[in-house]
Amino acid sequence: MSVDFDVIVIGAGPAGYVAAIRCAQLGLKTACVDNWLNEKGEPSLGGTCLNVGCIPSKALLQSSEMFEQANNDFKNHGIKLGSVELDLKTMMARKNKVVAELTQGISALLKANKIETKTGTAKLLADKKIKITDGGNKTVISADNIIIASGSSSVQLANAPLTENLIVDSSGALAFTEVPARVGVIGAGVIGLELGSVWRRLGSEVVVLEAQDVFLPAADQQIARDAQRAFKKQGLDIRLNARLLETKISGSGKNKQVEVIYQDEKGNQSVVFDKLIVAVGRRANSEHVCDEEAELLLDERCYIHVNEKCETSQPGVYAIGDVVRGPMLAHKGSEEAMMVAELIAGKHGSINYDLIPAVIYTHPEIAWVGKTEQQLKAAGENYNVGSFPFVASGRAKAQGDTAGLVKVLSQSVTDRILGVHIMGSHASELIAQAVIAMELGASAEDIALTIFAHPSLSEALHEAALAVDNRAIHIMQKKS
Amino acid sequence: MSVDFDVIVIGAGPAGYVAAIRCAQLGLKTACVDNWLNEKGEPSLGGTCLNVGCIPSKALLQSSEMFEQANNDFKNHGIKLGSVELDLKTMMARKNKVVAELTQGISALLKANKIETKTGTAKLLADKKIKITDGGNKTVISADNIIIASGSSSVQLANAPLTENLIVDSSGALAFTEVPARVGVIGAGVIGLELGSVWRRLGSEVVVLEAQDVFLPAADQQIARDAQRAFKKQGLDIRLNARLLETKISGSGKNKQVEVIYQDEKGNQSVVFDKLIVAVGRRANSEHVCDEEAELLLDERCYIHVNEKCETSQPGVYAIGDVVRGPMLAHKGSEEAMMVAELIAGKHGSINYDLIPAVIYTHPEIAWVGKTEQQLKAAGENYNVGSFPFVASGRAKAQGDTAGLVKVLSQSVTDRILGVHIMGSHASELIAQAVIAMELGASAEDIALTIFAHPSLSEALHEAALAVDNRAIHIMQKKS
Repeated sequence: MSVDFDVIVIGAGPAGYVAAIRCAQLGLKTACVDNWLNEKGEPSLGGTCLNVGCIPSKALLQSSEMFEQANNDFKNHGIKLGSVELDLKTMMARKNKVVAELTQGISALLKANKIETKTGTAKLLADKKIKITDGGNKTVISADNIIIASGSSSVQLANAPLTENLIVDSSGALAFTEVPARVGVIGAGVIGLELGSVWRRLGSEVVVLEAQDVFLPAADQQIARDAQRAFKKQGLDIRLNARLLETKISGSGKNKQVEVIYQDEKGNQSVVFDKLIVAVGRRANSEHVCDEEAELLLDERCYIHVNEKCETSQPGVYAIGDVVRGPMLAHKGSEEAMMVAELIAGKHGSINYDLIPAVIYTHPEIAWVGKTEQQLKAAGENYNVGSFPFVASGRAKAQGDTAGLVKVLSQSVTDRILGVHIMGSHASELIAQAVIAMELGASAEDIALTIFAHPSLSEALHEAALAVDNRAIHIMQKKS
Repeated sequence: MSVDFDVIVIGAGPAGYVAAIRCAQLGLKTACVDNWLNEKGEPSLGGTCLNVGCIPSKALLQSSEMFEQANNDFKNHGIKLGSVELDLKTMMARKNKVVAELTQGISALLKANKIETKTGTAKLLADKKIKITDGGNKTVISADNIIIASGSSSVQLANAPLTENLIVDSSGALAFTEVPARVGVIGAGVIGLELGSVWRRLGSEVVVLEAQDVFLPAADQQIARDAQRAFKKQGLDIRLNARLLETKISGSGKNKQVEVIYQDEKGNQSVVFDKLIVAVGRRANSEHVCDEEAELLLDERCYIHVNEKCETSQPGVYAIGDVVRGPMLAHKGSEEAMMVAELIAGKHGSINYDLIPAVIYTHPEIAWVGKTEQQLKAAGENYNVGSFPFVASGRAKAQGDTAGLVKVLSQSVTDRILGVHIMGSHASELIAQAVIAMELGASAEDIALTIFAHPSLSEALHEAALAVDNRAIHIMQKKS
């Protein structure tokens, strides 16, 4: 049977477009179908990550952090600012420009790699056929291999339905045209904390309501506790154990407000916001991407079922990224994309799912890889801990940014590193050192024997590794 | 023969104090002799690095970079600043406070580790005796082991003798009380570029005169060329092939100026400065630290002669840091300190001199480890190159700081990484990833298979490693 392509990729987010590019590099005739349209109604590749996720949030986190520095830090450095005024329109325009340049960059890369980009919503039919719906137009194309990378969407809450410009999801929260006086955030996860941070820095009073009674349960709990304290000090009002009951909208036009009624250990509470951000997680876009006739299995949480090679229940059909099990992270999707492309081309591919770094781009940043201390305890693992605070780092002091610490967990017999947890300036970059070390099977001793540039924040990892054996230099060590 | 200490360390810079602390941790009775006095005439541990080197320069680089951002970048981020005024006194006071806190921290660490700190100038006599001269007081103490960590001093030039507050070395250049209109720098090395950058950012016109005709000869020349262009664009006027002939002082009091006459390919040139910084390198402090009777060998460049274990020609006498061969870098000295302490305690110790990272804290920062491309060419090594520009990095774009690139050099048969060269934001931190990878014997493929957090600048290392095999994703690759 003759087919149109070697590979059709559904979705042009960081899983999909990477898959398409790598397939094309490997000489495969590749198409990529995507239905994202920007505000002007034009195709905008890059998926959630580039359009309304990682990238615009980081642009606003950067700008808002600079605004906060201008207000708080510059005078300590001997820089007198006459006045500091927010020009939100320019800040948002800059964010939009960053997004536009990067999405256009993806489009250019696909073109240069001779990938056929198709606009429309794709649905998998039987026999590796794809139906593309673009407005009223429907076409069907086929390929030897299909890669589904349809991503995920914000989970919506029945008791806090999205309401234009009042109750919003993360996308809406990246596009406010004024700084709201009071912002509520439902969900103290990564997205809630990042967006809450942006608006707090820009002047909003921010209350984060979290249903769970543990803050950042996936993070090392020592780091989570320190982070919670740091955020509180910044004025981020995080309320745990706060279960949303109801939202009530009052007022009209610009004066619309939303009252949130939630339950905590003391009973029912009420708080009124000018904007409410719902950030309670994301769900896989598995529902509409497969026709019944494709007979693709979903798992019990509605992810497309795949094995460790991202093969679905149908031969020649792969699924990667947020639509399959595993952390919903762009870099996890991109790596699955690389693996699947190699496999389709008949080469080797594999992923180490144990070493996917996690990052929260607050200030201080939080990043980790491997096991947390509570996981090691639960598993009955014998381990040593070494940690080092940035307040004892010369570079951190020179920068005037000394919050946080580096914590290294290593197996007590082999000394192999089991987890690294960082809270601090540039944790998002420092964590890569730990990922590389762990990927290469390093012991804490290996890091202790490595030479780190002075002065650098990275020296804190060196010292934490030394501390595993009670021989950090710049903090007092207990006698071993 | 009874001795006073197990170990006496001469010098409390980053080689000396680290040696003393590690010796004490290992249970050795340790003394540390240091003669550094601060402006108030009080002992100030930490040596050149903490008092007048790495730390104060990084404090001023941070503050001056923020000043530059306030003037140039904030408006693009939507932050309107009414006026931006330099308060140099506060900036310098902050720098001094950072230095004071860190030097006092070292003092506290030595005390807590029960190290006997002695103030005065030490001289090694025969039989591992040390004479300490503190003003008129002379005492002699002895130990089973001596560690000389007497550091280095700025090289002075006969034709540009230091002249108070006019012709200065790096220490003087960290303490100007006003922003000079025109600053000259002799020497386009690390120190010259960092100090030149500080004063340029604060408003000086800066001219850097470099005798060599190659810019940053120790750096990879692709990076060096890019850096030279970047610095020129910033307004740093770097003149190569400019050999200092003579300096002439004119005027008096506040109006003193210095005319510098130098020779380049066109003949004799003259330029007038309000301040001249001499930054032509450093020489080992080997001259006064040993009495003739100690019979310690120096090498032909006046370093104290040592083997790869930092043993001098006298048994039980070690020398480490700037006073011995190798790069004059704090972290090199600290690692030698750790090694020597372990050896004295009868344990193992070694250093990989091939993997000492180098950093220039300009903006963009420059950092590297391992071999440069010109070194590999000269050695006839077969290698592959992969590079990735920060302009294609989502994080760099979100931050608004896209200058520079990451370049990976790997052996063409084994794929083992031979060198990594970075110019860009936070290169000083990113380089640690390369040091760890190379220390663990990684191939470019190993880094290509490692998962990097998105979005992060670190992804540029990932992409550069992928590019070694022509499979970077976010730049076009030539067909392999």
